[in-house]
Amino acid sequence: MNTFGERFRFTTFGESHGKALGCIVDGVPAGINIDEEFIQSEMDRRKPGKTKFETQRKESDRIEILSGVFEGKTTGTPISMVLYNENQKSRDYSNVKDLFRPGHADFTYFHKYGIRDYRGGGRSSARETSARVAAGAIAKLMIEQLGIKVTSGICEVAGIKSEMYDFDHAKKSEIFALDKEVELKQKKAIEDALKEHDSVGGVALVKASGVPIGLGEPMYHKLDGQIANAMMGLNAVKGVEIGDGCESSRLKGSVNNDQISSKGFLSNHSGGILGGISNGDDILVKVYFKPTPSIFHEQQTVNTNKEDTKYHLKGRHDPCVALRGSVVCESMLSLILADMVLLNMGSKMEYLQAIYK
Amino acid sequence: MNTFGERFRFTTFGESHGKALGCIVDGVPAGINIDEEFIQSEMDRRKPGKTKFETQRKESDRIEILSGVFEGKTTGTPISMVLYNENQKSRDYSNVKDLFRPGHADFTYFHKYGIRDYRGGGRSSARETSARVAAGAIAKLMIEQLGIKVTSGICEVAGIKSEMYDFDHAKKSEIFALDKEVELKQKKAIEDALKEHDSVGGVALVKASGVPIGLGEPMYHKLDGQIANAMMGLNAVKGVEIGDGCESSRLKGSVNNDQISSKGFLSNHSGGILGGISNGDDILVKVYFKPTPSIFHEQQTVNTNKEDTKYHLKGRHDPCVALRGSVVCESMLSLILADMVLLNMGSKMEYLQAIYK
Amino acid sequence: MNTFGERFRFTTFGESHGKALGCIVDGVPAGINIDEEFIQSEMDRRKPGKTKFETQRKESDRIEILSGVFEGKTTGTPISMVLYNENQKSRDYSNVKDLFRPGHADFTYFHKYGIRDYRGGGRSSARETSARVAAGAIAKLMIEQLGIKVTSGICEVAGIKSEMYDFDHAKKSEIFALDKEVELKQKKAIEDALKEHDSVGGVALVKASGVPIGLGEPMYHKLDGQIANAMMGLNAVKGVEIGDGCESSRLKGSVNNDQISSKGFLSNHSGGILGGISNGDDILVKVYFKPTPSIFHEQQTVNTNKEDTKYHLKGRHDPCVALRGSVVCESMLSLILADMVLLNMGSKMEYLQAIYK
Amino acid sequence: MNTFGERFRFTTFGESHGKALGCIVDGVPAGINIDEEFIQSEMDRRKPGKTKFETQRKESDRIEILSGVFEGKTTGTPISMVLYNENQKSRDYSNVKDLFRPGHADFTYFHKYGIRDYRGGGRSSARETSARVAAGAIAKLMIEQLGIKVTSGICEVAGIKSEMYDFDHAKKSEIFALDKEVELKQKKAIEDALKEHDSVGGVALVKASGVPIGLGEPMYHKLDGQIANAMMGLNAVKGVEIGDGCESSRLKGSVNNDQISSKGFLSNHSGGILGGISNGDDILVKVYFKPTPSIFHEQQTVNTNKEDTKYHLKGRHDPCVALRGSVVCESMLSLILADMVLLNMGSKMEYLQAIYK
Repeated sequence: MNTFGERFRFTTFGESHGKALGCIVDGVPAGINIDEEFIQSEMDRRKPGKTKFETQRKESDRIEILSGVFEGKTTGTPISMVLYNENQKSRDYSNVKDLFRPGHADFTYFHKYGIRDYRGGGRSSARETSARVAAGAIAKLMIEQLGIKVTSGICEVAGIKSEMYDFDHAKKSEIFALDKEVELKQKKAIEDALKEHDSVGGVALVKASGVPIGLGEPMYHKLDGQIANAMMGLNAVKGVEIGDGCESSRLKGSVNNDQISSKGFLSNHSGGILGGISNGDDILVKVYFKPTPSIFHEQQTVNTNKEDTKYHLKGRHDPCVALRGSVVCESMLSLILADMVLLNMGSKMEYLQAIYK
Repeated sequence: MNTFGERFRFTTFGESHGKALGCIVDGVPAGINIDEEFIQSEMDRRKPGKTKFETQRKESDRIEILSGVFEGKTTGTPISMVLYNENQKSRDYSNVKDLFRPGHADFTYFHKYGIRDYRGGGRSSARETSARVAAGAIAKLMIEQLGIKVTSGICEVAGIKSEMYDFDHAKKSEIFALDKEVELKQKKAIEDALKEHDSVGGVALVKASGVPIGLGEPMYHKLDGQIANAMMGLNAVKGVEIGDGCESSRLKGSVNNDQISSKGFLSNHSGGILGGISNGDDILVKVYFKPTPSIFHEQQTVNTNKEDTKYHLKGRHDPCVALRGSVVCESMLSLILADMVLLNMGSKMEYLQAIYK
Repeated sequence: MNTFGERFRFTTFGESHGKALGCIVDGVPAGINIDEEFIQSEMDRRKPGKTKFETQRKESDRIEILSGVFEGKTTGTPISMVLYNENQKSRDYSNVKDLFRPGHADFTYFHKYGIRDYRGGGRSSARETSARVAAGAIAKLMIEQLGIKVTSGICEVAGIKSEMYDFDHAKKSEIFALDKEVELKQKKAIEDALKEHDSVGGVALVKASGVPIGLGEPMYHKLDGQIANAMMGLNAVKGVEIGDGCESSRLKGSVNNDQISSKGFLSNHSGGILGGISNGDDILVKVYFKPTPSIFHEQQTVNTNKEDTKYHLKGRHDPCVALRGSVVCESMLSLILADMVLLNMGSKMEYLQAIYK
Repeated sequence: MNTFGERFRFTTFGESHGKALGCIVDGVPAGINIDEEFIQSEMDRRKPGKTKFETQRKESDRIEILSGVFEGKTTGTPISMVLYNENQKSRDYSNVKDLFRPGHADFTYFHKYGIRDYRGGGRSSARETSARVAAGAIAKLMIEQLGIKVTSGICEVAGIKSEMYDFDHAKKSEIFALDKEVELKQKKAIEDALKEHDSVGGVALVKASGVPIGLGEPMYHKLDGQIANAMMGLNAVKGVEIGDGCESSRLKGSVNNDQISSKGFLSNHSGGILGGISNGDDILVKVYFKPTPSIFHEQQTVNTNKEDTKYHLKGRHDPCVALRGSVVCESMLSLILADMVLLNMGSKMEYLQAIYK
């Protein structure tokens, strides 16, 4: 169950403080130029420690391709990528080893498996998402050749919402802010949380443009369903919206329907998806991240013997996981679109006849 | 892609106005007593035409089991169920045959497949969900033997929110309302929409209690991810939340974390899921339905020749699809839990040793 | 696990003496003309009781399409087909109810599931293969449009081998014999077995011509691997060969290698498959069926209480299951090729560009 | 499609002369002691260059575990293993770069993908099977805890058949021979082939003992079907038999049926599988390997421009791939049994109740 996707699929491995993390990306069509620098640049966008708004933990996140690329091109065979953990020699974990950090997956992993790699959260650490970004970079290289462009930014921090969405600004912003007018306020909320040894939540907005009409497989592999699965499955995510999302349920049908003209849809309340299938308009997804559970207050918890105890975290953590999370959302959407592009090829007999003529 | 689930899986078929709809439920353990009346009663909860708040269309929704049950018990072989469409002889579809109803999947199905069964929306009709309810009833019969109970209700209509959640009241309410204090207001909003030939959105809340700790498969088949996929894949759904959902992203970590005591979690902001795995608390899911796209106003659209045209619907439609949708959400959550219960059996070697001793 | 295939996939249901059998075929591209008479004619080829070499049991095998076809064409939605059992009112099963027929799956089903539909073998009956033939007919209609032709015949009965393969003759032969020179001897062997209340084994040869180069997905969904899975999974099959098969392991490399010229391969020891991928030559598969386990001799067995007992079968059974089995092999190969044709569409970026231009 | 298995599944990557090969094993239950030396010893059994009957190529085959094991035990998270290619700096490939070696997958890979890693066969090299052996070692560690034992040997070389099966002898034999009486003859056949610059075929016999009754999932994931898929998918395999295999089709039912007594089956023609489900008896599988296609005779072929040419191989190759192939067969059977053990846990409601009590 560490595999995602049907035809363009990836499988990840690795723990936060194990030897390495990585992935195998399978089903990549042959003949795609692989730009290793681009892959590394995607890794670097997710990498911690770039600004004061992120954890100051250093991770090199240097990715290495082990297979599947020959003379700079994909060959149709699985692409394996690996990321060695440089500082795996462990600091002292005696304070977390036998208890469950509130808001973390410690409790559930321990009970599910009866054993837990407690070093930095083990497999449940957000560090696992670095492997998704590596896989996502391959997906991007593929779908960009078909004219699909995926981008993202932060549209809300600590309840402070963006009024407008400037994806170009987000690229330059230290907090990936979509709205430079509210960016300072959003930054201040993060800094305040840091001072209070607390954390804040945030919301990422992901957009895909240039998506062909017809992507998404009814009934149980719909485009919106798969997006929801991918996003809700990210660490700390508790809500997902497509298009107007939850707000749609407060509108009337006469307002919410996107009427159609010969020049295209007259509005995009639907977020580019109808009946689980892309309609050619921009795909818009909002992903709601809870505040980082790693805070520096004393909290009540139990240990592995089910005894009451107190927990007081030390260390370095992202005050707002949504920030770096937005890059991962972008990767996940790219991965889904790569998969959907392949799946859709079997939709009509005329496509088969075009290829097997 | 008309199959859902990994080990407890179902595959559905059928169009709104074809000969029949139905499903095959596969992976059901042998030895479960199958109560056909219970299955029918679940079908009847979803059936339209029961109250004035639903479409007045009559569908008999009589389910027939064709296989997989012997002497009243499951045998481990696939359970096929079928639902014949009684009124499949079609009324006149000339007004929808060549154009795309705004807010519906007509546009995307036509472009994806190049052909479209336009009778009542064909496969994209919400009538498809009747097959899910049949499958969900089997899932319920299974998980109830393990002490898991799934229930649902409506927590918001047209922006009018429930202040409290009374699942027993929802069972008796014509609109499945969770809060009898606001029920009248919610009903009035629906009636007003009917009068205005318009429609309203709504929100379903689904709850699972008695869920064992440990359900959910990291990384890409997490419990919350699968719930999000299932719910977002339902007709008209545009947003999904687990626990406090979107609100979590506006809280501080110190507030949002569920602290733990030897008697259990001190709060349930997480909605019973940590790291994609059930923590033993109630699972709480909110599902946001857009207003029914079928409204009785003239709307702008295009025909299959890409020419501008007008569309004016006649007929009978649910003014608020969330109502009957809540039953389907309950079915989907039951189906996911049945699957997760099976998947989790391989988590620890001690479980294998218990069985293969 | 009652689903076969990845993209062109079918799921079957039904027991020998239950209400009905059938299947859902999913992933069929839209726009294929569905000739219902052709489907029925395939069903009739497999149907028992046509000659004295088959069981004299009567089954009507009339197939009904319930969904997925609109105005004579596939729509891309799942195609459900059902076959009602007419004589399901059961004769007396008291003699088999509590014991395990040697050579049958009674023993293993009972122990695996703890419950068994003992009427005619239940789900383990070869009658299940009727659903495969229905699905296979859809596959044939699809792949024939791409120039692929699948055919079959019997190349060995009771150790009497065909010296030559005449697939046209097989179509007319009562025993699907490929070699009319040995046909009489093969028939006599069957008749002798009937007289002795015994049964004989046989071998089916299946051929696919016009197969494009490139079908088959390395590493674990290879064309030969999938064929082996499908054939070995048929009732009574105990051996599968591709091309020269077992004989290849007795040849030297210098003899067994198929050398290549600009006009094609100089021989076809490989049976049209290299590295799990079709090479454009005829695909040749031999499928070895054991003798029907249903014989009319007294046999030693145990009952469900693990007590020794005797079993003496009465009734009507195929003296040589390979005969009708050959039709099912043909269906399975067609189904695999339909799946592989779809899977291969993602092999090269240039195919994607051809479709998403 | 580089993933095998449903619940216990592995995904492999890597080319013969790329940077590394390896695998991710997913679905391994938590709590299994991982003996790294045992894994390495399995790798070493498959490693070339141990005797004069194998290729003299040196490969270190040193396996490294990157994840999924903590303090010597499995944690339920994916186990990644990697094997670096030490001599990847390539010799001269100009003689194979632009042509297709007869009997190899060069031709089909090139046509399927339009690009080919020609160094040592790339992904189609038998070196890929080293990753299967690593995964298989994990499977063995798991199933041995349940009392299942898998072993193998060579039962035929160049048409010289073993008269008896001594699996202990096979362990010590340089050619894994099951019958020491014919071993010398079999060795001589290999040496003769070497002298003639030719190659010979061979047959591996794989046995699993201690298999619980009930493994194998009807209808399309049967135990025999999956075994056939796995074995036929190995490089150079062209035939697979279960139990008496092809010979069964020459027997009468009265002889071939395994009668049953209260002490067990009276014979094992079926090879331990009935209806695709294990019956508790030894599982016996024969795997037929063609002669190594790499021979040192001049052969006719074409180049990538479809022009006729000659090919004359130099280098070092196994004269009989069946020998080392037998170890891989053993790994594949272990992997399948590990998967089937997990899948079978959902067969009966009483198993669920035992775990979720």
